[in-house]
Amino acid sequence: MAEGPPRAASTLLGVSADVAELGRRATTASRQLLRASSGDREAALIASAALILERAPEILEANAADVAAAEAAGLEAGSLDRLGLSDERLEAMASGLRQVAGLPDPVGEVLDGWERPNGLELRRVRVPLGVVAVIYENRPNVTTDAAAICVKSGNAVLLRGSSSAQRSNRVLVEALRDGVAKAGLPADTVQLVDDPSHDAAVELMRLTDSVDCLIPRGGAALIASVREHATVPVIIDGDGNCHVYVDAAADLDQALAIVVNAKTNRPGVCNAAESLVVHEAVAGQFLPQVCDVLEAHGVELLGDAAARRLRAGLALATDDDFAREFLGLRMTVAVAPSLDAAIEHVNRFGSGHTEAIVTRDLGAARRFTREVDAGVVIVNASTRFTDGERFGFGAEIGISTQKLHARGPMGLRELTTYRTEVWGDGQVVD
Amino acid sequence: MAEGPPRAASTLLGVSADVAELGRRATTASRQLLRASSGDREAALIASAALILERAPEILEANAADVAAAEAAGLEAGSLDRLGLSDERLEAMASGLRQVAGLPDPVGEVLDGWERPNGLELRRVRVPLGVVAVIYENRPNVTTDAAAICVKSGNAVLLRGSSSAQRSNRVLVEALRDGVAKAGLPADTVQLVDDPSHDAAVELMRLTDSVDCLIPRGGAALIASVREHATVPVIIDGDGNCHVYVDAAADLDQALAIVVNAKTNRPGVCNAAESLVVHEAVAGQFLPQVCDVLEAHGVELLGDAAARRLRAGLALATDDDFAREFLGLRMTVAVAPSLDAAIEHVNRFGSGHTEAIVTRDLGAARRFTREVDAGVVIVNASTRFTDGERFGFGAEIGISTQKLHARGPMGLRELTTYRTEVWGDGQVVD
Repeated sequence: MAEGPPRAASTLLGVSADVAELGRRATTASRQLLRASSGDREAALIASAALILERAPEILEANAADVAAAEAAGLEAGSLDRLGLSDERLEAMASGLRQVAGLPDPVGEVLDGWERPNGLELRRVRVPLGVVAVIYENRPNVTTDAAAICVKSGNAVLLRGSSSAQRSNRVLVEALRDGVAKAGLPADTVQLVDDPSHDAAVELMRLTDSVDCLIPRGGAALIASVREHATVPVIIDGDGNCHVYVDAAADLDQALAIVVNAKTNRPGVCNAAESLVVHEAVAGQFLPQVCDVLEAHGVELLGDAAARRLRAGLALATDDDFAREFLGLRMTVAVAPSLDAAIEHVNRFGSGHTEAIVTRDLGAARRFTREVDAGVVIVNASTRFTDGERFGFGAEIGISTQKLHARGPMGLRELTTYRTEVWGDGQVVD
Repeated sequence: MAEGPPRAASTLLGVSADVAELGRRATTASRQLLRASSGDREAALIASAALILERAPEILEANAADVAAAEAAGLEAGSLDRLGLSDERLEAMASGLRQVAGLPDPVGEVLDGWERPNGLELRRVRVPLGVVAVIYENRPNVTTDAAAICVKSGNAVLLRGSSSAQRSNRVLVEALRDGVAKAGLPADTVQLVDDPSHDAAVELMRLTDSVDCLIPRGGAALIASVREHATVPVIIDGDGNCHVYVDAAADLDQALAIVVNAKTNRPGVCNAAESLVVHEAVAGQFLPQVCDVLEAHGVELLGDAAARRLRAGLALATDDDFAREFLGLRMTVAVAPSLDAAIEHVNRFGSGHTEAIVTRDLGAARRFTREVDAGVVIVNASTRFTDGERFGFGAEIGISTQKLHARGPMGLRELTTYRTEVWGDGQVVD
């Protein structure tokens, strides 16, 4: 399996192991896309959705082979489930393509414009990034999701899925390419890096002549590899070590509902809360209560010394625990003597993803939103709202935990840049 | 000299060779800066400007030692000139600090805001990047320029100048730190990496826990080293292989003035034109004329086959010539049979910096601005206008040739990111 399954004869174009050649073709396609209208890009995604459904038997057959190979290789049940496709899942993928097709077009928006004293007129116009590379793991629905968001925003995309989904990805990418071509866009708008080796991934990470932005979607090992090897610009979709801070002025019923939702609604995702910080003025009342409810939901709690004094039975939380994204039913609990101390704790251990405060005190809310260094800061609501769909973006390609270019959930606009146009009538520099 | 001059006793704080420690202190300072008002940051720069002038004797003494050491080491005359300070240059540096202080504050601008059906109110607010690292060469005025633009935009800055300017940079950074502290901001807002070794630079490039953005300002070797080693987010200030395309519908008098200005006004800078592309419909008339004038300005011309047929005496331009940023009095000349061919030529050889078209044809201008893949596209004006000052930004920290985050001249806004605030009243996820 290390070499991946043998290449199908039908996938000579746009599904290749020659990463540099794929890059050159992506660049050419991205330039042609600058001429495409919003309607062309919309039509491309609608045609792709139709082809995904038309070719369901072929896709399901390829996917069944992937699943069988993964089972034989001993892939664990959760991964097998994420790998498997069905008629329902294909319908959801097609529906996702149509939904992204119908979103407002980000390209061409005039972001800003002004005139200079010499009569030059400047305007900043939103344009596609160019070539976006996405490295992702396992789930074949990312293939259509990532292609949809890239094509809609006018980008060419280089997809590099995992070896376990390779047969599925080939036929999916073929359908996407045919759909895109039907709408008159270059088929090379969507290409698959058909080489599951680490070397191919590293080559993609270093394709500075072609790749304008790389988005890795995967676990810590992938992120570490990208940090180490990438020479192309990258948007990191990193850990979510999210806190809920319950202020002295919190509505404690609201706080209880928010903490429990943030921790237990879906503990395995990046916007789940990993840590609870309670102001000491309300800790005596709130901590025992919230701990009871969390434990009743099966959450294992680890506390600092102050928390353990207020609630028996908490294990001792180390700094490592406070810094960890558990992605499961564990949570750290800390007591803060002040708002300042709470903010300091959050900034020390947070990963810059999402931080929430529960308070009725406007001054505390304002200070928390201003002084906490995170992409998303939430007042009186669950951390679980940090999500492209829930933000109303209509689609999401990840959640950035870096500050450059995009921060927080990334939708269509986050896959664009701008050009500055300067319109003159003969101006020269003195 | 490889070890740099001995460290002064007065520079124990904020001027250190311990890169990781500087990074930690920068992060702490950047968090404190989130509490600073616009007025605080303005006052910090005004106080710094006053201290630069007050300490002129000390600064000039340190600079004289730098210049003497550089002379002894055989630094060439141009570099020596850029290294040297004078009362006039210090006055200009102080005036630059005051000017940046007076610019509109980018921090706190509400970029966008909307409400969700569940009543959550979201808004995107412009905030500082956090910690900006700048690696630069030779000229000590970059020390104050970079500090000014970073402090004004609410960022902590890690400065890493060249060894030749080290004594100057130490006293300049001391003045900046004292000025910042006078205004009540943390002195660690401005810090100097006091180690001229390559290893220290590489350590800075890999300080992912602290550095939110690295801006290298220097030649090709520095850019290559950053691409190779950096694991922190980077904005590349790359080559400017800028074209002027003279369209079939150009006003040829205007075209002549623009080409000559773009090439000869200041040939050594990145926004100077390196290449002329002329539509064949006007090449017979225009080429001989523009070549005469350019040669009279001392420009050495290299042409493609078609250009050489129309104007005797042009050397043959190779693809390497077309791809090169000469940064001097050389220029390539190509004849394009069509607008399409011109756009293709520009996209093939351009570096994404600045591309200009001269035309009276609105359709041609629209196609050129839309289809040329460059940060700045200019219609009927000189490429030399691509500049933060000339764009009206009031200050510039470089010109980005990448597409992620910032593209083209970078002013205060380009040193910011955004946070998303979510304001609710108890919302949880179903």
